[in-house]
Amino acid sequence: MIRAAELIQRKRDGEELPDEELAELILGYARGDVPDYQLAAFCMAVFFRGLSERETFVLTDAMVRSGETIDLGSALGRKVVDKHSTGGVGDKTSLAVAPIVAACGVPLGKMSGRGLGHTGGTLDKLESIPGFRTELALDEFVAQVREVGVAIIGQTADLVPADKLLYALRDVTATVDQLSLIAASIMSKKIAGGAQAMVLDVKVGDGAFMRSLETARELAETMIALGRRAGREVVCILTDMDQPLGAAVGNALEVKEALDTVRGQGPTDFSALVLDACGKLLALSDLGVDEAEGRRRAAEAVADGSAESVWRRWIEAQGGTPDESALPAAPVVRELPAPAGGYVQRLGATRVGNAAVHLGAGRRTKEDTVDHAVGIVCHAKRGDRVEAGQPLASVHARDETAADVAAREVLAAYELGSEPPPERPVLLEVVR
Amino acid sequence: MIRAAELIQRKRDGEELPDEELAELILGYARGDVPDYQLAAFCMAVFFRGLSERETFVLTDAMVRSGETIDLGSALGRKVVDKHSTGGVGDKTSLAVAPIVAACGVPLGKMSGRGLGHTGGTLDKLESIPGFRTELALDEFVAQVREVGVAIIGQTADLVPADKLLYALRDVTATVDQLSLIAASIMSKKIAGGAQAMVLDVKVGDGAFMRSLETARELAETMIALGRRAGREVVCILTDMDQPLGAAVGNALEVKEALDTVRGQGPTDFSALVLDACGKLLALSDLGVDEAEGRRRAAEAVADGSAESVWRRWIEAQGGTPDESALPAAPVVRELPAPAGGYVQRLGATRVGNAAVHLGAGRRTKEDTVDHAVGIVCHAKRGDRVEAGQPLASVHARDETAADVAAREVLAAYELGSEPPPERPVLLEVVR
Repeated sequence: MIRAAELIQRKRDGEELPDEELAELILGYARGDVPDYQLAAFCMAVFFRGLSERETFVLTDAMVRSGETIDLGSALGRKVVDKHSTGGVGDKTSLAVAPIVAACGVPLGKMSGRGLGHTGGTLDKLESIPGFRTELALDEFVAQVREVGVAIIGQTADLVPADKLLYALRDVTATVDQLSLIAASIMSKKIAGGAQAMVLDVKVGDGAFMRSLETARELAETMIALGRRAGREVVCILTDMDQPLGAAVGNALEVKEALDTVRGQGPTDFSALVLDACGKLLALSDLGVDEAEGRRRAAEAVADGSAESVWRRWIEAQGGTPDESALPAAPVVRELPAPAGGYVQRLGATRVGNAAVHLGAGRRTKEDTVDHAVGIVCHAKRGDRVEAGQPLASVHARDETAADVAAREVLAAYELGSEPPPERPVLLEVVR
Repeated sequence: MIRAAELIQRKRDGEELPDEELAELILGYARGDVPDYQLAAFCMAVFFRGLSERETFVLTDAMVRSGETIDLGSALGRKVVDKHSTGGVGDKTSLAVAPIVAACGVPLGKMSGRGLGHTGGTLDKLESIPGFRTELALDEFVAQVREVGVAIIGQTADLVPADKLLYALRDVTATVDQLSLIAASIMSKKIAGGAQAMVLDVKVGDGAFMRSLETARELAETMIALGRRAGREVVCILTDMDQPLGAAVGNALEVKEALDTVRGQGPTDFSALVLDACGKLLALSDLGVDEAEGRRRAAEAVADGSAESVWRRWIEAQGGTPDESALPAAPVVRELPAPAGGYVQRLGATRVGNAAVHLGAGRRTKEDTVDHAVGIVCHAKRGDRVEAGQPLASVHARDETAADVAAREVLAAYELGSEPPPERPVLLEVVR
């Protein structure tokens, strides 16, 4: 018998819970023996009291044990690396990184999630490609990673079921933004997914869960410690999410931008981040290269077209049409001219993300369907100089009314000024 | 639509919630539109953030509005008074107060609850009387109060359903001991029950929810403020619960002690508290007397036998046999001699209450059944001088094994010393 009420009370009163009892609370919840309302009260108590590093590991481990785990490394006979982002606006990094890394000879098999709220999800982006299948059986998944070098699929129901339940519960009980719970959710999926080494991109700023560099650093350190306890190498990059990443926000628009980047024609900020992540992944892999050499090889794969070839083979392997002409396009494209000349001081990521949600590119509730064609392309970004009348951004909408609403929101996201703003790089910090 | 997750988050972040939205959260919960897990997270957020006086009133009022209310005053054409206790060990005050007050010409119709944990419930005590019915229809209840002057029944399902749901939820989510939630629970039932004036007995000490005089005072002030907003007069007495009240702990044993007290043969501490409460109730009533006169009339009703006559009529009206010989008796009665001579320094109420639960007099879980015959009678109480071998207490048990366990627990509750302990009166403070 799990004495759930007693455990809730002990956490509420600030106690560190014994390993076995905490694990049993989570496993009991996953089995359906502990009801939602007790876990809801528990998560709120954790929100106020926190979890120790040890408790966070026990929670993570119990979540991993709640379902199946995948040993992709053994199946491939290779050291397996993975890349994950805490989520942001315009973050299509995985789409570009995966084929580049694979082109360098390092397989990348990844399970991804859907978007909720103002941040998009990798699966939603991939599903804008006509025919693309995100639900492969596990053996298909492994076979594709072996043959093509890349596969990105939805998380299977058998992997970390406790996290699925817990995440859905936290989402409706105001207990999402707790550092230990976020770290356990991310790391349980990475550990169960079988990655031996990983690059975790912690987004920081207006459009991210982590608003400050301090909390982002704390999350990074928590995840690195969890990885260490589970025998996994973790490198965290803290990257800017005060403004959207790259130019495109919206599913098909982001796929096109990822493909452009794989071809060496992507936006500067996004391309730099992609190559940096590739360098780190190759350095973590079994290639035996350092980061500088990894980065050089990644740049080469982009320059010589091998990354684009992998992209085509990957998309085709999952049933999709790899040509960008096949991507859905929105009927209304509205250019937003700058109301005055000046330097872009700020481009609020949350506002742009919300504009994309209003257009239909994201979900307000889990039941919403996504319009893959719509979105926003930000031509001018922080620090750029624009003249009055020059296009700041374009809105891709289903109809004129939706375009009106989104246009107002996007224009409000832009802040212009007469002096250039202080520089803020995309890559803010690396934590190992 | 109730945006429950948003309200939880705002409370979590320390905001005072708008009246309408808070009320709708509670009413939505009572209707089944807001799930248990959201209220569980909400209650835990309230545990950490508290509720303002205004929020506590809105909560109380919404709980009242979640069901039916009774206007006993209009039905009787009288000002209606009520008495309530926050619960303690050996607290049979209502059983003695009701017939005495009624004998003085003030009707008392009361809805009571069952016990859980180490404190007993008035309904359980009354049900130890053979034939006694605690479930009367509302019109039977009103008619009995009119004709006999007293009725005590179980709370009907239609009265404050939100409190029933919320209390059951708090019980399993470690959110019981929060002052505003306790105050709202008590006051919603008193307000819906129709009392225009009331004496609330807030127990303080080892065997009570409120461990310190400070928190008890705070609870008293919260309930008085809630009463004032709802147009009810509230007088709070803060009374000692470091040791059991009176001598008897256990259902039939307590009924007998209440009857003894109604006859003027009760234990000193308990009798004094009963007469004090009666004086306050009569002063709050429409008799137009002050407390001293109320107390004199109550003492007279005890002395002249009129209170005992009302007791008999009351018990018979609810189907019970009023003679004490009809009460169930336990087969094993074990006297516990003092291991040494000395003054009783302490008689731990929780320990005695737990011993009674072990004997079967109380419930560990809501599903437990109660053994009405068993219990403990404490012959010696704090400050009493005992000689070695003189009986400290007697244990009334179903069998010898149960008596052994309870005897050990009761003996451990007694602390003897060579000097008399500092005096601590039963009535610690009055808050108005």
